[in-house]
Amino acid sequence: MAGETVITVIGNLVDDPELRYTPSGAAVAKFRIASTPRAFDKESNQWKDGEALFLTCSVWRQYAENVAESLSRGTRVIVQGRLKQRSYETREGEKRTVYELDVEEVGPALRFATAKLNRSGAGSGGGGGRSFGGGGNTGGSAPDDPWASAAPAGASAGNSGFDEDPPF
Amino acid sequence: MAGETVITVIGNLVDDPELRYTPSGAAVAKFRIASTPRAFDKESNQWKDGEALFLTCSVWRQYAENVAESLSRGTRVIVQGRLKQRSYETREGEKRTVYELDVEEVGPALRFATAKLNRSGAGSGGGGGRSFGGGGNTGGSAPDDPWASAAPAGASAGNSGFDEDPPF
Amino acid sequence: MAGETVITVIGNLVDDPELRYTPSGAAVAKFRIASTPRAFDKESNQWKDGEALFLTCSVWRQYAENVAESLSRGTRVIVQGRLKQRSYETREGEKRTVYELDVEEVGPALRFATAKLNRSGAGSGGGGGRSFGGGGNTGGSAPDDPWASAAPAGASAGNSGFDEDPPF
Amino acid sequence: MAGETVITVIGNLVDDPELRYTPSGAAVAKFRIASTPRAFDKESNQWKDGEALFLTCSVWRQYAENVAESLSRGTRVIVQGRLKQRSYETREGEKRTVYELDVEEVGPALRFATAKLNRSGAGSGGGGGRSFGGGGNTGGSAPDDPWASAAPAGASAGNSGFDEDPPF
Repeated sequence: MAGETVITVIGNLVDDPELRYTPSGAAVAKFRIASTPRAFDKESNQWKDGEALFLTCSVWRQYAENVAESLSRGTRVIVQGRLKQRSYETREGEKRTVYELDVEEVGPALRFATAKLNRSGAGSGGGGGRSFGGGGNTGGSAPDDPWASAAPAGASAGNSGFDEDPPF
Repeated sequence: MAGETVITVIGNLVDDPELRYTPSGAAVAKFRIASTPRAFDKESNQWKDGEALFLTCSVWRQYAENVAESLSRGTRVIVQGRLKQRSYETREGEKRTVYELDVEEVGPALRFATAKLNRSGAGSGGGGGRSFGGGGNTGGSAPDDPWASAAPAGASAGNSGFDEDPPF
Repeated sequence: MAGETVITVIGNLVDDPELRYTPSGAAVAKFRIASTPRAFDKESNQWKDGEALFLTCSVWRQYAENVAESLSRGTRVIVQGRLKQRSYETREGEKRTVYELDVEEVGPALRFATAKLNRSGAGSGGGGGRSFGGGGNTGGSAPDDPWASAAPAGASAGNSGFDEDPPF
Repeated sequence: MAGETVITVIGNLVDDPELRYTPSGAAVAKFRIASTPRAFDKESNQWKDGEALFLTCSVWRQYAENVAESLSRGTRVIVQGRLKQRSYETREGEKRTVYELDVEEVGPALRFATAKLNRSGAGSGGGGGRSFGGGGNTGGSAPDDPWASAAPAGASAGNSGFDEDPPF
């Protein structure tokens, strides 16, 4: 892929990551981050939070498992990924659009925390070698999207999938 | 402001920029860009377009006037700005969210075009000197938002906006 | 290429772009930009320039010709490119390293200027079609680097290069 | 500061971070990363490393201590920071320039590792509250730079400071 919009976002996980598996066995983790800018308020002489930016992020395979094992609600993270837009229709026939991040790299920011690292996939041969830079990480439109399959046709919105009728 | 999500997007203008003025006389331009990634398809041995990312961008003051004068539908541009999220309620009471770009810098990409430049605002004192890096460009939530004022309560959607329903 | 360090820089051209041709006829333009941050000084109540960041940028083919025709000393530009490091030895045998930008996209910023655009390469078939996102823009290490060939072994520094000593 | 060049780099630590303290007691950590792009080689049908980009990064205060405690040689990290250029004269009177990164955020990438996180500075009141976005992180030119003070005038290069006569 060329010409993708790669962005970096610093934010905090709104919830724990959610880990699923495709029918073919590939792991996928989704997590949502809030990035809150701050402005210095001269009157009160202190920093004040601006309006947060929320983004849903997805990450695949061994990386997904590492994320699910390492990050949790509240963790401050650095995420680099491709900004994607996905359109869908609600059951009422309305067109909606959501923006998401296909994660290339993610990790905990060390501003307020220390990290003890463990090499992952030691026994598994490194999760299929150094899968890299989006190579093969084809994100949301995979035929065996575990979120898609989790939402049977006609399911009422909001039952589970944050991918079927995203409330964000 | 600190901690904002600054991103760079390469894309093409979907329409001509729309220029308005706030009651207090400040210019604002809005334009929408489509950024289309491409993947190399091995079977056909050629590049194919991926799904486009659309973003609405806003820019203020002299910069807005320069944009309106220089760019038009189809122009390929480079935009750097702060990614913002704005929530609103539809008349049906549904919550919606749009993502927008508060432009810091924008210009035509020279990949397929040449540009003849003219220094702007020569007679006008440069629009208040070198206004800079977002200094004072407080974007969408300005009390005198010309888009907000342009959309009277109860106005039918799509009457003017290039963005369907958001009441800018 | 995957895993490259793509950055965006806003700055002003230090000199006019320099356009050359490889023996095989490919155009290359080099230009140098200065990006100057500013801090608000509370005592004097005004913005002050910080220390500038200088970067040499190179761009190829039709894009190079468009740059050379459109930009000149002082032009404020937005540049997106791959940050590269290149090491070489001086005639004294010292190792030196320079950082450069392989341009992906560049254009004039419209903050202080308007631009009149002309579609380029109309007669030439678009310079080989929509060459894209680094596709084939293999930059500095090309065997027929016009800067390399311009600096015969033992040449005294500064004879041609706009960059003192690096043998491009 | 406005108009700074903020970039994100993914790379691996070349060495363990080096932690020092200024005379006034502020912690500073320096570390060097190598970012290696990869290209797919069609002939051998495998990925090959491109030329690495090396950057020295500095981070301050509690963040510095967290970095020194968490990261080590080889760790894959995501770093966001301000790209800075620093010029100096060698003892021979030659002008040299180095590029460095003033870290805003850094953390381990979870591509090949899991992380167990511990909130830092628990006993110390969180390092002075949410210090933010470079607020007060004034980097290399601080009057009490611990690297500067560690290198007495006339010291032979390479004794300690990678900041006096950088070999890169």
